[in-house]
Amino acid sequence: MDKLRFTPLVAALPASVPFVGPETQQRVSGKPFEARLGANENGFGPGPKTIAAMQQAATETWMYGDPESHDLRTALAAHHGIAAENIMVGEGIDGLLGYLVRLLVGPGDKVVTSAGAYPTFNYHVAGFGGELVTVPYVNDHEDPDALVAKAKEAEAKLVYIANPDNPMGSWHDADTLQRMINNLPEGCLLVLDEAYLDFAPDNTAPALHPDDTRLIRMRTFSKAYGMAGARVGYAIGARDLISAFNKVRNHFGMCRVSQAGALAALGDQAWLQECLAKVEASRNQLNAIARDNGLVPLPSATNFVTMDCGRDGDFARKLVQELGKLGIFVRMPFVAPQDRCIRVSCGPAREMELFAAALPAALKAAAANAPQSV
Amino acid sequence: MDKLRFTPLVAALPASVPFVGPETQQRVSGKPFEARLGANENGFGPGPKTIAAMQQAATETWMYGDPESHDLRTALAAHHGIAAENIMVGEGIDGLLGYLVRLLVGPGDKVVTSAGAYPTFNYHVAGFGGELVTVPYVNDHEDPDALVAKAKEAEAKLVYIANPDNPMGSWHDADTLQRMINNLPEGCLLVLDEAYLDFAPDNTAPALHPDDTRLIRMRTFSKAYGMAGARVGYAIGARDLISAFNKVRNHFGMCRVSQAGALAALGDQAWLQECLAKVEASRNQLNAIARDNGLVPLPSATNFVTMDCGRDGDFARKLVQELGKLGIFVRMPFVAPQDRCIRVSCGPAREMELFAAALPAALKAAAANAPQSV
Repeated sequence: MDKLRFTPLVAALPASVPFVGPETQQRVSGKPFEARLGANENGFGPGPKTIAAMQQAATETWMYGDPESHDLRTALAAHHGIAAENIMVGEGIDGLLGYLVRLLVGPGDKVVTSAGAYPTFNYHVAGFGGELVTVPYVNDHEDPDALVAKAKEAEAKLVYIANPDNPMGSWHDADTLQRMINNLPEGCLLVLDEAYLDFAPDNTAPALHPDDTRLIRMRTFSKAYGMAGARVGYAIGARDLISAFNKVRNHFGMCRVSQAGALAALGDQAWLQECLAKVEASRNQLNAIARDNGLVPLPSATNFVTMDCGRDGDFARKLVQELGKLGIFVRMPFVAPQDRCIRVSCGPAREMELFAAALPAALKAAAANAPQSV
Repeated sequence: MDKLRFTPLVAALPASVPFVGPETQQRVSGKPFEARLGANENGFGPGPKTIAAMQQAATETWMYGDPESHDLRTALAAHHGIAAENIMVGEGIDGLLGYLVRLLVGPGDKVVTSAGAYPTFNYHVAGFGGELVTVPYVNDHEDPDALVAKAKEAEAKLVYIANPDNPMGSWHDADTLQRMINNLPEGCLLVLDEAYLDFAPDNTAPALHPDDTRLIRMRTFSKAYGMAGARVGYAIGARDLISAFNKVRNHFGMCRVSQAGALAALGDQAWLQECLAKVEASRNQLNAIARDNGLVPLPSATNFVTMDCGRDGDFARKLVQELGKLGIFVRMPFVAPQDRCIRVSCGPAREMELFAAALPAALKAAAANAPQSV
């Protein structure tokens, strides 16, 4: 297609995508998944009040959503005790990460992350011509000191950390994160992805100082609030950084139904607490299922459990495939040595039972098919 | 905020936004609009089947939407008699225009449009460093021959035309558009924005040749299907161009409720036809209201009527303000000489009555307050 004059940057980008959706996998296999435990969705939510608000808003979908998401931002500001000017609502954290990278990263700019951390962030960095520099996980944790050291060395514009971490479920305490913030090199912005924070113990998040120009924090309604399909994320950051999103974002990108749903969900904290208790119970179930099958569940501050299979990446990949054949959708870390694990989302009782029932056979099949990796 | 290292391109971008939403205007005035006729939303839709599908999907919003929008793309392909590989679904035409510009336009690349055409397209061009070159409207129509000539002269990568046009409501026939396509300079892609096509007479759209690499067409569920708040647009183009969107788009950007709604809406063509008849009746009402008040309604192939006020832009701006004070939200073209007009969306009977009731007083107030422009 020589007639298409893509930019040199776009022409050089790979056609690969960060994640293949479960629907695509189902279409390939011709068989629907019976348990959808691979995308860290939250099968317990959203609550009835939220669903009712979305259903009401569906009758008003002839109107564009408010491009400022004013009501939601105002409610979030009250919820966090900060100003609405420190909050930007966007099309999920994925969308907001794309805008953020676009604001700061141009061809050749350095960005630091952990090898095996969130691929969609890496996708955005590559998409704007940034150069990704990685540091390894240490004991299945991201390494704040190494990330900061690498950011200094590379004179990076951005450094990314998720706390709690995806895909490992591990976390650092607030003091560790605050030390990371304090040690950042001048002019390097920390992207603190807190998508899973609601599931984490107290004292996981450093105190909110929204006008601190050294970091931007990402939150979402996709995980604890159980609204992945609604695409509502938000960023908390310094006002000048937040307002800069208005230079590049899709102003009318937010769905009206999603705005109404997020507002209702935020207002129903009782449901959130119920949901968190259910997730914790499910996490305990997953821990037990893993141990019953000779896998080692890693400690998790999220709505998933990453399970060490005790072998190499080939074995874990095989296990993910075998589980898929048995109707169980799970995923796994992409990068060694974390790819010795599989990652299983929490979910309702039926999904836990299906996973527990399928795991022994899947392990057996994976072992039979991957003898070289024993 | 010297600590924030925006890219040079972003640092140079203006903070202005393409459109201020009606909600913002309401917050400023402290008074809600009684008739929302400014954003070319469609108050007649969506239909009950679509709303029911969205309400059902709201119960499944814990799941991410299918990143490939497979079912919707397949249904669209069948509807148009083309292949799904020629279709990209995205977050409204606004979102798709952003991705398209990103694919093709880098700093200094030339893009041609009409002076006063869609500001959001211009926003994206500026946002990726492109240089906008404009040609004037002729008799309130975009000028295909001049656009092509300017594209040749500027060696433009992209040339934009909306057919039917927004904000003027005018249109060209299929032959004129096909001639434009045939005359495009080598390597220049035509962006044919057909957001309003459903309202237009037969023989407005050139035949679909989806693998023609010379153009990409934009369609939407926001207008005739009445789903502006759901953010569902789609592009029809050559496969290599369509697949290139996968290099830059927000793969999980589509809301699950919106995907379900668009699929249902596409399947309810009877409702669409009813809706189109209602829009036509409303358009006739708007024409009559305009004439009754000494304004000249321009011929329209859209769901809005652009009304020539017979004075200058200052008068029209004043009229828009005065209508706003009376609870009527309308907009107007941004650029002279088109800015002698106001633009009023079709809508249900109550909104038509409110507009008819408010217009005489608003005209009087505008005339009293803008004597210098008589």
